[in-house]
Amino acid sequence: MPLMSKVQYEESLRKLNLKVYMFGELIENPVDHPVIRPSMNSVGMTYELAQLPEYEDLMTTTSSLTGNKINRFGHFHQNTEDLIKKVKMQRLLGQKTAACFQRCVGMDAANSLFSTTFEIDKTCGTNYHQNFLKFWEYVQENDLTVDGAMTDPKGDRSLSPSQQPDLDLYLRVVERRPDGVVVRGAKAHQTGIVNSHEVIVMPTIAMRPEDKDWTIAFSIPTDTEGVFMIYGRQSCDTRKLEEGADIDVGNKNFGGHEALTIFDDVFVPNDRIFLNGETDFAGVLVERFAGYHRQSYGGCKVGVGDVLIGAAALAADYNGASKASHIKDKLIEMTHLNETLYSCGIACSCEGFKTEAGNYQIDMLLANVCKQNVTRFPYEIARLAEDIAGGIMVTMPSEKDFRDPKIGPYVEKYLKGVASVSTENRMRVLRLVENLTLGTAAVGYRTESMHGAGSPQAQRIMIARQGNIGKKKELAKVIARIKE
Amino acid sequence: MPLMSKVQYEESLRKLNLKVYMFGELIENPVDHPVIRPSMNSVGMTYELAQLPEYEDLMTTTSSLTGNKINRFGHFHQNTEDLIKKVKMQRLLGQKTAACFQRCVGMDAANSLFSTTFEIDKTCGTNYHQNFLKFWEYVQENDLTVDGAMTDPKGDRSLSPSQQPDLDLYLRVVERRPDGVVVRGAKAHQTGIVNSHEVIVMPTIAMRPEDKDWTIAFSIPTDTEGVFMIYGRQSCDTRKLEEGADIDVGNKNFGGHEALTIFDDVFVPNDRIFLNGETDFAGVLVERFAGYHRQSYGGCKVGVGDVLIGAAALAADYNGASKASHIKDKLIEMTHLNETLYSCGIACSCEGFKTEAGNYQIDMLLANVCKQNVTRFPYEIARLAEDIAGGIMVTMPSEKDFRDPKIGPYVEKYLKGVASVSTENRMRVLRLVENLTLGTAAVGYRTESMHGAGSPQAQRIMIARQGNIGKKKELAKVIARIKE
Amino acid sequence: MPLMSKVQYEESLRKLNLKVYMFGELIENPVDHPVIRPSMNSVGMTYELAQLPEYEDLMTTTSSLTGNKINRFGHFHQNTEDLIKKVKMQRLLGQKTAACFQRCVGMDAANSLFSTTFEIDKTCGTNYHQNFLKFWEYVQENDLTVDGAMTDPKGDRSLSPSQQPDLDLYLRVVERRPDGVVVRGAKAHQTGIVNSHEVIVMPTIAMRPEDKDWTIAFSIPTDTEGVFMIYGRQSCDTRKLEEGADIDVGNKNFGGHEALTIFDDVFVPNDRIFLNGETDFAGVLVERFAGYHRQSYGGCKVGVGDVLIGAAALAADYNGASKASHIKDKLIEMTHLNETLYSCGIACSCEGFKTEAGNYQIDMLLANVCKQNVTRFPYEIARLAEDIAGGIMVTMPSEKDFRDPKIGPYVEKYLKGVASVSTENRMRVLRLVENLTLGTAAVGYRTESMHGAGSPQAQRIMIARQGNIGKKKELAKVIARIKE
Amino acid sequence: MPLMSKVQYEESLRKLNLKVYMFGELIENPVDHPVIRPSMNSVGMTYELAQLPEYEDLMTTTSSLTGNKINRFGHFHQNTEDLIKKVKMQRLLGQKTAACFQRCVGMDAANSLFSTTFEIDKTCGTNYHQNFLKFWEYVQENDLTVDGAMTDPKGDRSLSPSQQPDLDLYLRVVERRPDGVVVRGAKAHQTGIVNSHEVIVMPTIAMRPEDKDWTIAFSIPTDTEGVFMIYGRQSCDTRKLEEGADIDVGNKNFGGHEALTIFDDVFVPNDRIFLNGETDFAGVLVERFAGYHRQSYGGCKVGVGDVLIGAAALAADYNGASKASHIKDKLIEMTHLNETLYSCGIACSCEGFKTEAGNYQIDMLLANVCKQNVTRFPYEIARLAEDIAGGIMVTMPSEKDFRDPKIGPYVEKYLKGVASVSTENRMRVLRLVENLTLGTAAVGYRTESMHGAGSPQAQRIMIARQGNIGKKKELAKVIARIKE
Repeated sequence: MPLMSKVQYEESLRKLNLKVYMFGELIENPVDHPVIRPSMNSVGMTYELAQLPEYEDLMTTTSSLTGNKINRFGHFHQNTEDLIKKVKMQRLLGQKTAACFQRCVGMDAANSLFSTTFEIDKTCGTNYHQNFLKFWEYVQENDLTVDGAMTDPKGDRSLSPSQQPDLDLYLRVVERRPDGVVVRGAKAHQTGIVNSHEVIVMPTIAMRPEDKDWTIAFSIPTDTEGVFMIYGRQSCDTRKLEEGADIDVGNKNFGGHEALTIFDDVFVPNDRIFLNGETDFAGVLVERFAGYHRQSYGGCKVGVGDVLIGAAALAADYNGASKASHIKDKLIEMTHLNETLYSCGIACSCEGFKTEAGNYQIDMLLANVCKQNVTRFPYEIARLAEDIAGGIMVTMPSEKDFRDPKIGPYVEKYLKGVASVSTENRMRVLRLVENLTLGTAAVGYRTESMHGAGSPQAQRIMIARQGNIGKKKELAKVIARIKE
Repeated sequence: MPLMSKVQYEESLRKLNLKVYMFGELIENPVDHPVIRPSMNSVGMTYELAQLPEYEDLMTTTSSLTGNKINRFGHFHQNTEDLIKKVKMQRLLGQKTAACFQRCVGMDAANSLFSTTFEIDKTCGTNYHQNFLKFWEYVQENDLTVDGAMTDPKGDRSLSPSQQPDLDLYLRVVERRPDGVVVRGAKAHQTGIVNSHEVIVMPTIAMRPEDKDWTIAFSIPTDTEGVFMIYGRQSCDTRKLEEGADIDVGNKNFGGHEALTIFDDVFVPNDRIFLNGETDFAGVLVERFAGYHRQSYGGCKVGVGDVLIGAAALAADYNGASKASHIKDKLIEMTHLNETLYSCGIACSCEGFKTEAGNYQIDMLLANVCKQNVTRFPYEIARLAEDIAGGIMVTMPSEKDFRDPKIGPYVEKYLKGVASVSTENRMRVLRLVENLTLGTAAVGYRTESMHGAGSPQAQRIMIARQGNIGKKKELAKVIARIKE
Repeated sequence: MPLMSKVQYEESLRKLNLKVYMFGELIENPVDHPVIRPSMNSVGMTYELAQLPEYEDLMTTTSSLTGNKINRFGHFHQNTEDLIKKVKMQRLLGQKTAACFQRCVGMDAANSLFSTTFEIDKTCGTNYHQNFLKFWEYVQENDLTVDGAMTDPKGDRSLSPSQQPDLDLYLRVVERRPDGVVVRGAKAHQTGIVNSHEVIVMPTIAMRPEDKDWTIAFSIPTDTEGVFMIYGRQSCDTRKLEEGADIDVGNKNFGGHEALTIFDDVFVPNDRIFLNGETDFAGVLVERFAGYHRQSYGGCKVGVGDVLIGAAALAADYNGASKASHIKDKLIEMTHLNETLYSCGIACSCEGFKTEAGNYQIDMLLANVCKQNVTRFPYEIARLAEDIAGGIMVTMPSEKDFRDPKIGPYVEKYLKGVASVSTENRMRVLRLVENLTLGTAAVGYRTESMHGAGSPQAQRIMIARQGNIGKKKELAKVIARIKE
Repeated sequence: MPLMSKVQYEESLRKLNLKVYMFGELIENPVDHPVIRPSMNSVGMTYELAQLPEYEDLMTTTSSLTGNKINRFGHFHQNTEDLIKKVKMQRLLGQKTAACFQRCVGMDAANSLFSTTFEIDKTCGTNYHQNFLKFWEYVQENDLTVDGAMTDPKGDRSLSPSQQPDLDLYLRVVERRPDGVVVRGAKAHQTGIVNSHEVIVMPTIAMRPEDKDWTIAFSIPTDTEGVFMIYGRQSCDTRKLEEGADIDVGNKNFGGHEALTIFDDVFVPNDRIFLNGETDFAGVLVERFAGYHRQSYGGCKVGVGDVLIGAAALAADYNGASKASHIKDKLIEMTHLNETLYSCGIACSCEGFKTEAGNYQIDMLLANVCKQNVTRFPYEIARLAEDIAGGIMVTMPSEKDFRDPKIGPYVEKYLKGVASVSTENRMRVLRLVENLTLGTAAVGYRTESMHGAGSPQAQRIMIARQGNIGKKKELAKVIARIKE
């Protein structure tokens, strides 16, 4: 039965024996930890919606491996329509969670590995594709959430893996055994790993011949011996720990997380290895994963943007300012920017193509253009939201003041906006805007938009590579009647 | 035989008896007039490429009316793939002409009328759809170029058609006869009308009940009695008239044009009328035409942008500056912006849908988003091109100086860039950049990008209307746990 | 002795009997409260630097009232040089605190009241100027910190004060006595009020004749009976409460605050009243205060920007990325934007003029232009800082993890950047960037830049009013040879 | 009598024996040539306004050399007030000409040479300062217009002067005689040289020891044997040659020009040499000249911007669109951007300082920031002007059509805007906007704003050098409590 309910998903997480540290302590029960729980709910939404008939077409599909109905997050894209539906599914989930729902990395890693392992095998006579298919059928059949781990800590950015003073700053093979390898290293800002059953580990850059030991891709369960996570701090993270917190959290039910994940001499069995020393293919794998993941942002961040636009519009309503022409114009601008991102997500999907292995890949140039815009427009949308919301968003008394019998009535009185709306609701929407522009969700909506799936400069390098300036020069020469 | 060659097209134009005025004079032979000729060549390219096997798939298709092979410019879009191919065809033509090739307006008008006449007939029991199909089958079968005339002079923008002191400032019916109507008025900036066989006239705004006489759509041959054109001035237009002009023109072979077109009591027969007083449908028609045309700009301007990016890159090469990191970065930025426009063109096509009448319409929201970006990014691309090209682009001696036996050698000597490139070629590419940023082509690449298919504010109104802020507010309420 | 030391300032605050609420509780000792203390330190810096010879010229001056040496924050500007030094002093303090140092509002309020009271008296025969001078001499002689309270809660923005369902949503006179008035209402986001000895209250908008009761300006000690403050929440505020917090706070020593300040039927004696019902002058006072305060932002935010640019540059160094051309270029852009803000601050000062009362006022147009840029550029500077810092800024483990004997070594190992810099220092600078872009200081650097001294639209209205479009049209007519 | 009238200026130009080529022909009488004349009028305005009492304070001053009243264009700045007045004078002249008035280069060259020659003499024991003072006193006493010639053709930008295949691509000494030197080379885009009595020639880059022969600065009369000019083409230049041209020119009376100026083995006497082989000082001179000239753009372009804003506002009035909120908002934005430029011009002046030689120099960092903004904002102002003006600006029939007895009435009828304004006046203002955004004046307002006084990257290098990132890092370390 490949589709889990949200409850089953939660139960399946409880069975894991994860080692998660936060604030210097080992977390007993991550599923119920108030800081972590909202992020679990976000992943949970990918299970929940898959059970609803109105979202069936977006959230589920038929496995190309088994013919079974599966969650789209486990799917190998079979055509451009699949690529487009992926983006629409991500926008939907962004709208429902206003947060990062984390499950995309696994999907993007899987589709990259599907085609790359096929090509490695063809060139090198290896058996990675079968390894991978076997693993992924297991994922599909059990409706698992899989983390995709790419980013190494990298140490000194001006040095390659084998040049680092500490060789572990890129994850590497430290021991080779007949039945597998032992790896050491870490993966930084692992989105959703605490909510994942499995993790796919991949290199983070193109590798040179001397970097063989760093050229390793594999998957293991997240509770494998030697793996542990140190939960990343987010802006305003501890508001979730405050007694009775609701309004002040901004988005009480949903969130995202990243964790520094340590691989402290972890054994990986042979049948879970998908790349091992074929340095020529590291760059291919990275580029594909980045490409898929840059497409993803044209969906998920747009969905979050929808919520932020809605929140700003509500704030204007509640302030009695929604008829001012400049407010209307700012909402138009926010919509315009958000839909431009969506257009890029759709376009790189629509222009996708079939790989040799048979799944579909996005248009690389347009996916990079998509992500490059994502490093800009959410910031401007956030700026405009702060403009519309008003300064009270960051000077407002706390929920505890509002609930206090003595002070509360003053807050109630003086934070009132239009007569028809309660002060509480006005506070709620202002805290939501705060959450998305400065708080926990800003981590996802702003900084992750900047650096997730590669920092802006990474996209610019790809745009330069894919932009075909040579052909453009030829066009110009013909028009200018230049003969050389 | 529905496909004309470029030569046949040219001959067909010669047979027309057009009345074209320029600089106060009636032009005897528009086809060979040096100011007009380049714009004819641009339209000609739509015929030329349709004959080449490598472009067959983009440039031609099968008529939904006759099953014959036709030029795509005469096609009713049958699916989203058709919409996407339209955009790709436009990008191709922009690349081949670096100018406006003018034939899109007719295509966009036809697709709008196809669905709108169907809906009017259904509601009002009229017979416009058949009128229109008969006309358009004639267009397809003869591979005609058709102008789409929408923009009225509008006089005082704060007044409606019937409020204007001069009632003719919006084109209107001045006489109703049993066999047709007589119209009076003008259409401003008619793109390509001098190169068109037929013109489709449509209202330019939504109409109110009192504006019945202004609610008229029809088609007539461009050389109908009472129709005449006053050719619009463009920046640098007379360079084409200079003796031996080549380099200084920037783009010697191609161009675009607009003309103020006067309808001085022109008779329109009944079977060429497609709307006549059904005021409720004027706005629908305008919106659809605008929608299709806003999509178009996501193709054609991108193609022109490709040439400008190529020209800037060449200029950098010829200056010996192409290795500077800031030059590379500017070319990346230009590419990024240009591909963002393309993404919007593709996305609104890919998200198209079937109309009741059976042809395909673009996604309205995304088409407006597309055009809104077109009112911005070409300006920035042009700015960056001017940055890369260097000041010499606007201070360079004339071609006549360069050709002069006495002065020429000094120009040759001192305008030399890198050793491997001739001064002439450097001048050619600089003049091409000038042409696209300040000259005749800037009219198309900049100002037409701003105002063609509706000025920026028109798109913003549509974005507000289509953006569904209400739904976004609901999303925000759920996340913020607001109950009202 | 008009100059207090920082220690004396702190002692003077302890003597106040302020009523400050936070998280639903009355704060016993605001001076030592860990959330409030850093903001006190920021104000303290205005005392500390005034004692240092190297800053004497910027930080102190000679009173125009007494001839005594005073802190510049208590000064009536006597010439444009004073206006310029004000901006430089603010930049200096921004550099030293990376936060809002709060003392400007009182200075700006005082300079506005100086000239406005003079003019009211002249027109209305009142005695406000003497009242105000007497009060302000007391402030100067005791080196007090004075809050300037302008922004009312405003309720429904589409209604005027007397139209609000709750008449108290703009602060108003509820009782008139022979010896003074009783006021009721609140002032929102009062910057630094908890660190102030006195508060000057002013109307927040131009008033109409029917708004007489809302037309009131006065000053009172901050611990006056009936006055109390509810401390505003800031992003990440409770990090300061965490045990042993240092790194994670980002800026351990300095901060800012805002508080909702309630005036619960507070008595104001006659000699502390500076405006009382003269509705024509409310707008004048608001405009002047806003003008001075918009100038201020051309100093203080620039100083904070300096720190953020420095922090981003350090982060690049520590990452080993400082030699990448795109990193250098981003630092240039940040510098460029920051210095543009400074230029506006300097220009509106340099173009200042003498008021009828004798102090100097800034150029209104340029001060509004200054602030308008402040609503934009800090956001872009922050975005670029996030770009340079890298994603680790928002996914980094907590300080407690770093200090933990078991987990700490892993954090130490894997968060190492270049070999020469300790992981701790790298974490420190990343947390500072976080603090300024997402944390407590982002409230000041971003949202306050947006809304402080008036939201962007307020400046646009002033720019329209001051821009003299009429004269510009005349210039254009002459050039275009238009005779009317 | 140091102040010439405009008539005297014109007469003085007639006495010169300039060799000016245009379109392959030697111009007999440059002063009356219709293409050149408007640019002469622009310089003429600097003489005309100097005679008017209302502009006396801005346009004239007292010579520091002679104590005589002189035109400010001949002045050595004696204090920051002089620097500020310079900017205000430039804004005034931009307003009066809507064009480049060309006389600034000489002023900026003179002030740079004043301090640099002083310092060279001090270091090298040369006598350049006296040479220069003698020359400049002559300029002041005769109220001459002096061109400042800096930009060499540069050939291959990746090669230094002595590496170029053609050694003349940077102007150089080809012969050294006892009484002087002979120079060969060219200076590109020489602004106003045809309207100048004298030309100051300077190197265009910092020089290396091996570039001694290229390290030369001097002045000579513009009609010196061996000097000749090839007039640069501008967009729409030949409109001025059209019979009866008035409306279509856009700005009939004023313009600017640049010319490629050839120095074909020109003799320079010793007493006119200001630098000759002291390679260390070439860079100093270039930087200072660039600095002064980058300041200049914060004045002149702002004045032109005033006219463009006025023209756009008029166009909106004439269209009947001036009440639309988006139109108002665009005018505000244009004003905002224009005043930001002005603020930068004022600020770098106000922050000026005294050189060792005694004149005043601008703040280098802020002057570069000023110019960097000038490479951006005029483009955006122009874009907004095109937006407001409407498409008719580039599709409008020619003036000849308008004047034609047969066609004219149709143009009159259909180009009518609001009832109260004549069609002619509407055409006039639209042609002025065209002139400034696409036509002859766009060369000055756009491309010259980009490249004049150095291309954008040149400013960025200076901003990096002057921005003191080191100090900013120290500030950040203190705040982040980083000890190293």
